[in-house]
Amino acid sequence: MQYPAYASLSSTFRRIYRFEHLLALAGWDQAAMMPDGGNDARGAAMAELGVLIHQTLTDPALAEVIAAAKQEELGSDEQASLREMIRQWEHANLLPASLVEAKTLAGSHCSHEWRTQRANNDWDGFLANFREVVRLAREEAQLLSQHSGLSPYESLMNKYEPGMTCAELDRIFGDVKQWLPDLIQQAMRKQAAESVVAAQAPFAIAAQRELGLAVMDKLGFDFNAGRLDVSHHPFCGGVPEDVRITTRYTEDDFTQSMMGIVHETGHARYEQNLPRDTVHLPVGRARSMAVHESQSLSFEMQLGRSPAFLALIQPLVCQHLGEQAAFSVENLAKIYTRVKPDFIRVDADELTYPAHVILRYEIERALIDGEIEPDDIPALWDEKMQVYLGVDTRGNFKNGCLQDIHWTDGSFGYFPSYTLGAMYAAQYFATIRQLHPDLDQRIAVGDLAPIFDWLKANIWTQASRWETAELIERATGEPLNPAHFRAHLTQRYLA
Amino acid sequence: MQYPAYASLSSTFRRIYRFEHLLALAGWDQAAMMPDGGNDARGAAMAELGVLIHQTLTDPALAEVIAAAKQEELGSDEQASLREMIRQWEHANLLPASLVEAKTLAGSHCSHEWRTQRANNDWDGFLANFREVVRLAREEAQLLSQHSGLSPYESLMNKYEPGMTCAELDRIFGDVKQWLPDLIQQAMRKQAAESVVAAQAPFAIAAQRELGLAVMDKLGFDFNAGRLDVSHHPFCGGVPEDVRITTRYTEDDFTQSMMGIVHETGHARYEQNLPRDTVHLPVGRARSMAVHESQSLSFEMQLGRSPAFLALIQPLVCQHLGEQAAFSVENLAKIYTRVKPDFIRVDADELTYPAHVILRYEIERALIDGEIEPDDIPALWDEKMQVYLGVDTRGNFKNGCLQDIHWTDGSFGYFPSYTLGAMYAAQYFATIRQLHPDLDQRIAVGDLAPIFDWLKANIWTQASRWETAELIERATGEPLNPAHFRAHLTQRYLA
Ligand SMILES: [Zn+2]
Ligand SMILES: [Zn+2]
Repeated sequence: MQYPAYASLSSTFRRIYRFEHLLALAGWDQAAMMPDGGNDARGAAMAELGVLIHQTLTDPALAEVIAAAKQEELGSDEQASLREMIRQWEHANLLPASLVEAKTLAGSHCSHEWRTQRANNDWDGFLANFREVVRLAREEAQLLSQHSGLSPYESLMNKYEPGMTCAELDRIFGDVKQWLPDLIQQAMRKQAAESVVAAQAPFAIAAQRELGLAVMDKLGFDFNAGRLDVSHHPFCGGVPEDVRITTRYTEDDFTQSMMGIVHETGHARYEQNLPRDTVHLPVGRARSMAVHESQSLSFEMQLGRSPAFLALIQPLVCQHLGEQAAFSVENLAKIYTRVKPDFIRVDADELTYPAHVILRYEIERALIDGEIEPDDIPALWDEKMQVYLGVDTRGNFKNGCLQDIHWTDGSFGYFPSYTLGAMYAAQYFATIRQLHPDLDQRIAVGDLAPIFDWLKANIWTQASRWETAELIERATGEPLNPAHFRAHLTQRYLA
Repeated sequence: MQYPAYASLSSTFRRIYRFEHLLALAGWDQAAMMPDGGNDARGAAMAELGVLIHQTLTDPALAEVIAAAKQEELGSDEQASLREMIRQWEHANLLPASLVEAKTLAGSHCSHEWRTQRANNDWDGFLANFREVVRLAREEAQLLSQHSGLSPYESLMNKYEPGMTCAELDRIFGDVKQWLPDLIQQAMRKQAAESVVAAQAPFAIAAQRELGLAVMDKLGFDFNAGRLDVSHHPFCGGVPEDVRITTRYTEDDFTQSMMGIVHETGHARYEQNLPRDTVHLPVGRARSMAVHESQSLSFEMQLGRSPAFLALIQPLVCQHLGEQAAFSVENLAKIYTRVKPDFIRVDADELTYPAHVILRYEIERALIDGEIEPDDIPALWDEKMQVYLGVDTRGNFKNGCLQDIHWTDGSFGYFPSYTLGAMYAAQYFATIRQLHPDLDQRIAVGDLAPIFDWLKANIWTQASRWETAELIERATGEPLNPAHFRAHLTQRYLA
């Protein structure tokens, strides 16, 4: 064996990967299949295996093997692999088990109560639990920060976006804040003159599902390595060898579930095309949450809402849902690009979505860095919604600062990934369009190879081989450049 | 803590139970949900957790805790619990890991190839793999036998039926062989004069599923703690807190899938009604495979095929599948009690089924005890099929000795459980009918409480508190007595 310590680490991580397979399956089942009565036993079983994985990563013997591997004359691939192992290992070892447990307990308690409190617009009730969640998140952020030298908020964000800094986010989001509000206004003025034909419900669930499967097929989803099911919150789960995506149907509307399937299929193809020879190692897994989101948004926003793609799938819509005036390509394109500032992030259109994200980034960063307290959130929320989107949220906690699950269980630092993903996706497509000036014509006739081949070569099979910044620069020839995002939005909404 | 060693064992077994939860879920998913491409990763993940459970049970430290617990002045409940822990622990420790691994490899290889070989009627091809499966099973049986003092075959059978002996099986099956062939002949003569109206296909799968759910509801299945899905081979899986049953539909026939659901619901209610306070301990789990089968056969044979039950669910059949001449209660009862000696065990009627089991018992026992070799099986099979059922299987390996999966992966000793289960079920119902002479009238109007209350009190909540013989005697007032089975069959098929 050439690198005995590295080989030993690989087999430890392969073992962890197999355990994570079972956790991923259990999580998918919990959301898509499990009856309520099974929840306690399921939670206990998943926690038990989670503890085992944590024990494996914090075994003092592993520290010695890692030290030994660092001394081995590894090739560059193995060095990258070791770098990613160490990232995961360090994170597991930085937090005492008592803190991890306290966080889990406080988060799941707050999250569980939030479901009722949100429905009741009960901010004060929520605050009683949420203060503890924030206190523990700050404690975690401090511990991570002492090790990384980053700010507390950056340390949390780096769990999802290794290498991203607040300085870069401020630069990028500061730029967006300069032009986005005006772009939204212009797009709305332009659209005010347009008429959109609403699709006539009902749409049978079984027909919507068949339509979704047909669209997944067009998008290259490998049904021998994955499934489509239903869950309350759509997601992409499972393992790279068997990717489970979900959607949610309502008979009143098919547009959201269909585009939701396009989105999750983007996540799925990334997973399905990770390099199989290293899939059991951290280096063989998805690069980051923003890079993951850049795949789903490449599918949903860059490809999915384009007139060329809508022209491609319009016959499928008619085939499965019947012919309607609303199903002209032109009208479908209008439906899928309608701009309307509103309360809810997950329902937001492509253009107003970044404003929702920037608002949350600014608030959660100040909260974790100790500049504001939980009590200050509603006033800040109201103020920023007014400035960024002209929406009045005063007293409306339910559709304001109580709308997202992320903060309720302490997942601070995740929100930027959504808009970073949208920006990466715009940058990929700028590159792909340069290589293929006839891209839209090819999409319209069903030739999606220019997109899939590029993503596969530059993103999917690269997995975590490079740090995110290098991945993006290798793929597109330049660092993250929000100008592509702006150009895409301007082209789509003002041209 | 009153019994520190016992308490320590309990927490070890709780941990194992949680891991087994994840294995059970993964197994269900593999059969009911997983796309083919996920199989290698799934197999590796399940094997990894299986190894961990085996390591936990063979940890030398556990031996010391068990020795200490034996010295504790345990109450009788804890003594019974310790007895069941020791049974599981001993079994894990009797076999070297190398043998377990070799068995798994040879079994899964033989089993996998068998699927094609059976279709091709290829006995010679099968034999090439099967010899190794038998060799390893004999090795296992020898090791178990040295410890238990039982015969090799008994030692394997005791994995499924702790406490059962070949002497008792010979007594019971010897008795059955005296009267069964004649009973089959008489029943066939009686039925020859009857006309049965065949149900007119097709039956939409969605309607069959709705009918199945309605029948499960009548049978008290707790949908908050379980589901109904589809798999190639119907089974009852999952965990007591979340029981997953499956069936298989064909548009040509609804009778098999409906009665299959009744059968699996019997297994499911046993699991769902195990005592929750000890569900994580061996003592809180199902007593044995025969006792499990006695629940499914109480539901399917004693209750499900009775005219009273068919009268109860006949309106559901009409509601979901439409009215048909074949759906009269009298005709449904004829369909569900039709006797016809034939090749296939899993398709056999209630009356000929025991002959299939006794034949397999006699062959596998001789095989494991070294009285015959794998090469001898077809001739023995042909001979016994001729004697017991008058069916000619010469040269027909596919529908003869190649029809079952059990031997292909080395599960020798399981077959007797099916007929023991049928006998226990007949004995329960003899007891219940004594307590409730009006049982059939109550069934017909939907009052199933006499059955469910009795099973719950006497079997389900008793779990593994008592050895099987004591469980049966406590429940019915006498040891296993095949006379009840004979009386039931005589009453149903000749009255
Ligand atoms: Zn997404
Ligand atoms: Zn059964």
